[in-house]
Amino acid sequence: LRTGFPEVIWGPGKTPQQIAQIMEAMRNRTSVIMATRIEPDVYGAIRAIVPDVHYYATARICALKSPPSPDHKPQIPGTIGILSAGTADLPVAEESAVTAELYGFGVQRLWDVGVAGIHRLLNNLHVLNDADVLIVVAGMEGALPSVVGGLADCPIVAVPTSVGYGASFNGLAPLLTMLNSCAAGIGVVNIDNGFGAAVLAGQILRTAAKLKAKSEKL
Amino acid sequence: LRTGFPEVIWGPGKTPQQIAQIMEAMRNRTSVIMATRIEPDVYGAIRAIVPDVHYYATARICALKSPPSPDHKPQIPGTIGILSAGTADLPVAEESAVTAELYGFGVQRLWDVGVAGIHRLLNNLHVLNDADVLIVVAGMEGALPSVVGGLADCPIVAVPTSVGYGASFNGLAPLLTMLNSCAAGIGVVNIDNGFGAAVLAGQILRTAAKLKAKSEKL
Amino acid sequence: LRTGFPEVIWGPGKTPQQIAQIMEAMRNRTSVIMATRIEPDVYGAIRAIVPDVHYYATARICALKSPPSPDHKPQIPGTIGILSAGTADLPVAEESAVTAELYGFGVQRLWDVGVAGIHRLLNNLHVLNDADVLIVVAGMEGALPSVVGGLADCPIVAVPTSVGYGASFNGLAPLLTMLNSCAAGIGVVNIDNGFGAAVLAGQILRTAAKLKAKSEKL
Amino acid sequence: LRTGFPEVIWGPGKTPQQIAQIMEAMRNRTSVIMATRIEPDVYGAIRAIVPDVHYYATARICALKSPPSPDHKPQIPGTIGILSAGTADLPVAEESAVTAELYGFGVQRLWDVGVAGIHRLLNNLHVLNDADVLIVVAGMEGALPSVVGGLADCPIVAVPTSVGYGASFNGLAPLLTMLNSCAAGIGVVNIDNGFGAAVLAGQILRTAAKLKAKSEKL
Amino acid sequence: LRTGFPEVIWGPGKTPQQIAQIMEAMRNRTSVIMATRIEPDVYGAIRAIVPDVHYYATARICALKSPPSPDHKPQIPGTIGILSAGTADLPVAEESAVTAELYGFGVQRLWDVGVAGIHRLLNNLHVLNDADVLIVVAGMEGALPSVVGGLADCPIVAVPTSVGYGASFNGLAPLLTMLNSCAAGIGVVNIDNGFGAAVLAGQILRTAAKLKAKSEKL
Amino acid sequence: LRTGFPEVIWGPGKTPQQIAQIMEAMRNRTSVIMATRIEPDVYGAIRAIVPDVHYYATARICALKSPPSPDHKPQIPGTIGILSAGTADLPVAEESAVTAELYGFGVQRLWDVGVAGIHRLLNNLHVLNDADVLIVVAGMEGALPSVVGGLADCPIVAVPTSVGYGASFNGLAPLLTMLNSCAAGIGVVNIDNGFGAAVLAGQILRTAAKLKAKSEKL
Amino acid sequence: LRTGFPEVIWGPGKTPQQIAQIMEAMRNRTSVIMATRIEPDVYGAIRAIVPDVHYYATARICALKSPPSPDHKPQIPGTIGILSAGTADLPVAEESAVTAELYGFGVQRLWDVGVAGIHRLLNNLHVLNDADVLIVVAGMEGALPSVVGGLADCPIVAVPTSVGYGASFNGLAPLLTMLNSCAAGIGVVNIDNGFGAAVLAGQILRTAAKLKAKSEKL
Amino acid sequence: LRTGFPEVIWGPGKTPQQIAQIMEAMRNRTSVIMATRIEPDVYGAIRAIVPDVHYYATARICALKSPPSPDHKPQIPGTIGILSAGTADLPVAEESAVTAELYGFGVQRLWDVGVAGIHRLLNNLHVLNDADVLIVVAGMEGALPSVVGGLADCPIVAVPTSVGYGASFNGLAPLLTMLNSCAAGIGVVNIDNGFGAAVLAGQILRTAAKLKAKSEKL
Ligand SMILES: Nc1ncnc2c1ncn2[C@@H]1O[C@H](COP(=O)(O)O)[C@@H](O)[C@H]1O
Ligand SMILES: Nc1ncnc2c1ncn2[C@@H]1O[C@H](COP(=O)(O)O)[C@@H](O)[C@H]1O
Ligand SMILES: Nc1ncnc2c1ncn2[C@@H]1O[C@H](COP(=O)(O)O)[C@@H](O)[C@H]1O
Ligand SMILES: Nc1ncnc2c1ncn2[C@@H]1O[C@H](COP(=O)(O)O)[C@@H](O)[C@H]1O
Ligand SMILES: [Mg+2]
Ligand SMILES: [Mg+2]
Ligand SMILES: [Mg+2]
Ligand SMILES: [Mg+2]
Ligand SMILES: [Mg+2]
Ligand SMILES: [Mg+2]
Ligand SMILES: [Mg+2]
Ligand SMILES: [Mg+2]
Repeated sequence: LRTGFPEVIWGPGKTPQQIAQIMEAMRNRTSVIMATRIEPDVYGAIRAIVPDVHYYATARICALKSPPSPDHKPQIPGTIGILSAGTADLPVAEESAVTAELYGFGVQRLWDVGVAGIHRLLNNLHVLNDADVLIVVAGMEGALPSVVGGLADCPIVAVPTSVGYGASFNGLAPLLTMLNSCAAGIGVVNIDNGFGAAVLAGQILRTAAKLKAKSEKL
Repeated sequence: LRTGFPEVIWGPGKTPQQIAQIMEAMRNRTSVIMATRIEPDVYGAIRAIVPDVHYYATARICALKSPPSPDHKPQIPGTIGILSAGTADLPVAEESAVTAELYGFGVQRLWDVGVAGIHRLLNNLHVLNDADVLIVVAGMEGALPSVVGGLADCPIVAVPTSVGYGASFNGLAPLLTMLNSCAAGIGVVNIDNGFGAAVLAGQILRTAAKLKAKSEKL
Repeated sequence: LRTGFPEVIWGPGKTPQQIAQIMEAMRNRTSVIMATRIEPDVYGAIRAIVPDVHYYATARICALKSPPSPDHKPQIPGTIGILSAGTADLPVAEESAVTAELYGFGVQRLWDVGVAGIHRLLNNLHVLNDADVLIVVAGMEGALPSVVGGLADCPIVAVPTSVGYGASFNGLAPLLTMLNSCAAGIGVVNIDNGFGAAVLAGQILRTAAKLKAKSEKL
Repeated sequence: LRTGFPEVIWGPGKTPQQIAQIMEAMRNRTSVIMATRIEPDVYGAIRAIVPDVHYYATARICALKSPPSPDHKPQIPGTIGILSAGTADLPVAEESAVTAELYGFGVQRLWDVGVAGIHRLLNNLHVLNDADVLIVVAGMEGALPSVVGGLADCPIVAVPTSVGYGASFNGLAPLLTMLNSCAAGIGVVNIDNGFGAAVLAGQILRTAAKLKAKSEKL
Repeated sequence: LRTGFPEVIWGPGKTPQQIAQIMEAMRNRTSVIMATRIEPDVYGAIRAIVPDVHYYATARICALKSPPSPDHKPQIPGTIGILSAGTADLPVAEESAVTAELYGFGVQRLWDVGVAGIHRLLNNLHVLNDADVLIVVAGMEGALPSVVGGLADCPIVAVPTSVGYGASFNGLAPLLTMLNSCAAGIGVVNIDNGFGAAVLAGQILRTAAKLKAKSEKL
Repeated sequence: LRTGFPEVIWGPGKTPQQIAQIMEAMRNRTSVIMATRIEPDVYGAIRAIVPDVHYYATARICALKSPPSPDHKPQIPGTIGILSAGTADLPVAEESAVTAELYGFGVQRLWDVGVAGIHRLLNNLHVLNDADVLIVVAGMEGALPSVVGGLADCPIVAVPTSVGYGASFNGLAPLLTMLNSCAAGIGVVNIDNGFGAAVLAGQILRTAAKLKAKSEKL
Repeated sequence: LRTGFPEVIWGPGKTPQQIAQIMEAMRNRTSVIMATRIEPDVYGAIRAIVPDVHYYATARICALKSPPSPDHKPQIPGTIGILSAGTADLPVAEESAVTAELYGFGVQRLWDVGVAGIHRLLNNLHVLNDADVLIVVAGMEGALPSVVGGLADCPIVAVPTSVGYGASFNGLAPLLTMLNSCAAGIGVVNIDNGFGAAVLAGQILRTAAKLKAKSEKL
Repeated sequence: LRTGFPEVIWGPGKTPQQIAQIMEAMRNRTSVIMATRIEPDVYGAIRAIVPDVHYYATARICALKSPPSPDHKPQIPGTIGILSAGTADLPVAEESAVTAELYGFGVQRLWDVGVAGIHRLLNNLHVLNDADVLIVVAGMEGALPSVVGGLADCPIVAVPTSVGYGASFNGLAPLLTMLNSCAAGIGVVNIDNGFGAAVLAGQILRTAAKLKAKSEKL
């Protein structure tokens, strides 16, 4: 167990009954109780057993704890900027966003800033400047992190998605793109792994908080 | 034989003697006599046999006919804009440029506009606007054509290069990137195929010239 | 947005309701309103909401604007010749053809001219000669563009399809064939990307028209 | 040991001394004594030990028995037609041709009939018609066997070569092309395996001779 | 059209109505009317339209002409021996066998002689000796053709199948095995391509018949 | 240009003269002047031109500025722990370490803690605990980051190396291992990209410093 | 047939009727009658025909003979330790365990000891020490066998599973990981091949028993 | 450290000086001191420093301890049978054999029993019967372990080699063949990993010895 990041439930391959049971078993034991990759009908079956479960439809996440309201100041300072290239990348981008929010981090979303329409990205540079760490989600050719890497001055977590067809080979194309990015300072996670990106971004903010605490002790 | 594009000599696997011999055999028969992928020492050995051969060092091209001087108006109207992402992509980009010039097309070069420093590209949008067709050369993640595809309003020929290491897998990564580009209107050629890109771009300008001739006949 | 080519709706992953809604939102704003990769049942559900939608069954395209009637002279001069190798490649070839027609370009179809029966192609060389740009669609071994590249004197857009089985690896085989074509002057698009091929071919014709306009201004 | 096809020596990884020694050991024991993939300098070293060795330079074959003179009627009736697409495919095509001749089969060569210049092939259809079995050698996109498969009425052995660069991936592209050929009746051998193609073609002619002998016995 | 091998209908992607219609259109025009890759329910729907259609269940072939009865001497002399490695390879092996029989060739079947139980193969060597050409079908590791290649003295057509799981990668493993066979004289066809193997084997027997006819004319 | 990380020179494909020239041009303009992937003989030739260049042999880095002495407190607080699995991974691990030190970050090295001898890692857990961010370098199977991910509570940058043979496929194996790590919170960079890992880790520490500065302003 | 390991029935592609029939045919002929990869509904249909069939649900195995009761001393001495990394790997691990038990071997299970929580493995080292041979089952990054290889002093059979997503490429990632393990003494079987691992482990224990018998005869 | 198998030195990437130094450091500390993948000239340089080093030329192994003389009864009972398919596989097979002998195990060699000449294998079945564990080494199509798996009743360690060309893809083909073997009870190691195979086979014999010791204690 890595401190501060309670285990989450991986939905695929589990019955709604099993997920409900694990959720109940975790209740009162951890601060965040969530399951990922939950289709709407699975959510329906879980809710029949666990009435207070909440569903984040786009993110395909079920959770017992709702995200902090906008005016609820997060405990760990800093903002995770999350960018996505296309509409079809939203489920992965929202998996990152909701995970981060459920873990208590501040999130700033910027959707639909794919490189084929670069001006939308350039018109929103304040999001890149305000963020302390960026998650960049893109499928098809996956070029967005490279461009962002040249514009932003913070760590970047790149998430390739399986969005695309033909020579995207289920996400292989954007994965290779991101690994070969000529912009340094980019860490890549597995295809569609919005959850893992949120944990890595969260770790980066926690590192900052811990360093500050250390320096104050001196 | 495709009209207007005389055969060129593919250098690899041929001795300097063989290349020299083919060049002499072509002399007086075609307007352009050139050989590609010629290393400097091979050039030296060819020149010993064919004294009037010219060497385009970066392009690694040997030719009997020098490119038109800047003030020499090309016969086929239109401009081929050629962009390259990084310094290491120059040999491929120059192979495109010199081929196009030797074939009599107007060329506008724009080097080192890789996406990790997007402002250099944005500061040179006039090159994109002035071109009638664009050749975009990029290695590593090969993201440049996608960005250009969103900025330019003309046909784009994308050339992946084998520049890179590790997960670029000798040009596979930028090849996949370009094929998956979310910007439509991009045609991709083989890895490092600067020559083929020039022929395709030249065909596009010739099509325009032929269409104009047709319409004037009516 | 690239001038002259209004955005089209990518069908997969969207509900009929979402597609219908986007179409209505685009009405009166763009000249071409179309959605690609639409299965018959999805079309049925869209039509229930948008009664004046038209369905091009083989092309799997829904559109609000029908293609120009045969005697309706296109605004942009020139003809896009579209060739397909086998019957199973028709959906992709028709995606190209209908897209091009909806965008207002003149199209000449030539189906079933695969290289295993080369005489059918040779008996129709007038189509190759009359075209100003060619789209060549082929699956399985994808050899057709190479042969056409040696016969035609115009730019060629090659479209590999996922038609085939076993060692075609979902279109990888014809994709590699086309990229390695020994005939220069061929630009390749993604597997099954009939739409992108039409946009590239259209760009080529528009370039010609713009060049003519430029020369007339002088 | 398969009757009628004496073992041949695979050159790579063996010293000239080892090859010479194996050749001498085979002398007087088999009718054909040959070694494949022999570079010129290796041949020189072998000849210093085995003076009567003959070198087929393009085929890169060393043998103790020269091929039958043109007017020497082969013992096994029938002709192996051998076609090659490009100049760079010649070493593989000649490996097939010399192997077949050394084994006593009649060979008809047809070089440089790649599909990008289809008329050269069409002008030589008599070679296809006269052959009883065809070996078709091609690199790059490897499209030649598909076209030949539609023109010839005899068994076809297809040999992909490693000629090419970039997305040919050392012969993977023509290999896949040939395996996916939409023309049936084509058997494919390993990349650059001119030797194996000759053995398969020879087996086909021997089958014919054996069937004739059987029918005469009845 | 290659003489002697009438076109067959490729079932996948066609409706039963389309298949029935093509069959009726071919009736009275060609001697063999067959469709491959037909599932039982598709057969049922075809039979409702074409009552005299016959179904070869394991081969998944529908045909209007039944195979020659055992005592019906085939017109083309010679025997095609067909071997299969495992039970799961039977559909592909039967596709070869029924195709060959429908085309009028003599067939000898030998099932379940995979290399993991080599003695069953060794106990049936007479099948290898009696055959004039062999088709060898194997999935998983696809080792059978290599072993047969060392035992039989006739041309071998190797058919990899998609039988297997995990690292068989849908037939890639046996395909590579067969291409790398250390036994020469083996031609490989596409994964699961039982039909193509039958055509190639048939071509080999027809070559023999044609050579005999030629020699008798002299 | 990303603030705080001056450009470095990528050695491969550049002559010593070119590298020396770029270094001199950068002198007095940036705080860190370094070139990566420099072989010993290239270093020798550079030093002949730039006498005050320093060579980090294992890291294969040339630089004009030596790393901070051990007692020189770094300006950006925090420690980058760098772990390597095997001896052959050292050049990549040292590329990370020297880059980080040249950029002014505090580095703690832990070499030879591969998972096949897990106790050496477990006996050095203090390095994991003391680090604010970890770089984990491993080739062959690349399992080290997964294990470290379960032990450390900080962001992890994983670097696959091309160390290995056979089925490591030049680093593909450890790359896939790291991307699939069941431990979340790991960002992966390109194969052998020790430099990029250092930049990402440095960005993480700078983020912490900037966040602290922000909070102090409030 | 390999002595001591009766054939088992591979379920996929067989109807329940076929499986039931084979089981009945084997009854009274072999000591172990089992079928693998049986889904629950297939089991139901088999039981309707063969009432005394037993179903091991997680292992997806149907068998006529139940495993030895805990106090039933196995005939072949020695213990097969079976480890699995994650919950989703259980079906494969149980396939190994039930197969081994049905064949009469002693089995010790240790589930959920994935490397991301290394302490659970370290707290159960007695399982590794007590085993005479180990089967280690892991998906995703497949790192567990490498770690176990450094801790255990006995032969290890590694089983990659298809558990994972994205860059696991259906088990390719853990397969490569295991083949590249820096710990020697590990033999790898096919992806998800729990059955094959049990046979190999059983062979190892039988070898031991046979060696003991041999030595006692002396 | 795994008991009984002292570390060996991996030669590639180390200078002769480094290897000599490590050997001297190990002297008097472990019973076996050996280095693998040593080319002849590297051996020469090592011997100049360590005069009592012995070189096993085919195995490319340097060692300080010679293998047991034939009449020296090994301490661990049992015999490792080692089979190789072709002559070119010998370096890998000898790496296995010499490693096993240096570790004190009894070895029985059987070279050149590739499946294309199955009778040589069948004439030597006593080697398979006498062995307690088998190492089977094969390149190209790698079919030998499958055949042996059906003939032998003991554990099999399969070693694919990089011997071959074209579609062998540096050993990928035999690797896949072996993983897909339809004979169960086969464990596969990395391409060319003769050393690892010897350690695994040795572990199997040691397990037998330990089990015997355990049973005698009871
Ligand atoms: N969406 C996700 N993407 C990647 N990993 C996940 C995701 N959701 C859960 N996990 C991982 O799966 C683990 C739980 O797996 P399980 O025990 O099967 O529910 C968690 O600890 C996470 O590390
Ligand atoms: N740099 C190049 N890249 C790709 N194709 C080329 C290049 N140079 C020449 N070619 C092609 O190679 C052909 C000549 O090949 P060859 O007859 O072997 O000299 C030309 O007609 C071109 O199509
Ligand atoms: N050029 C070639 N291509 C493929 N296989 C060959 C070739 N030359 C020889 N061989 C095969 O290699 C075997 C001899 O290998 P070796 O015993 O190593 O000399 C012959 O029996 C042939 O089957
Ligand atoms: N060792 C390295 N690994 C990866 N990227 C590097 C490395 N060294 C330099 N670079 C990148 O290469 C760029 C310089 O390339 P160049 O202009 O060709 O010298 C730098 O800005 C870095 O982003
Ligand atoms: Mg993108
Ligand atoms: Mg780029
Ligand atoms: Mg085709
Ligand atoms: Mg060709
Ligand atoms: Mg087999
Ligand atoms: Mg490791
Ligand atoms: Mg694991
Ligand atoms: Mg073999």
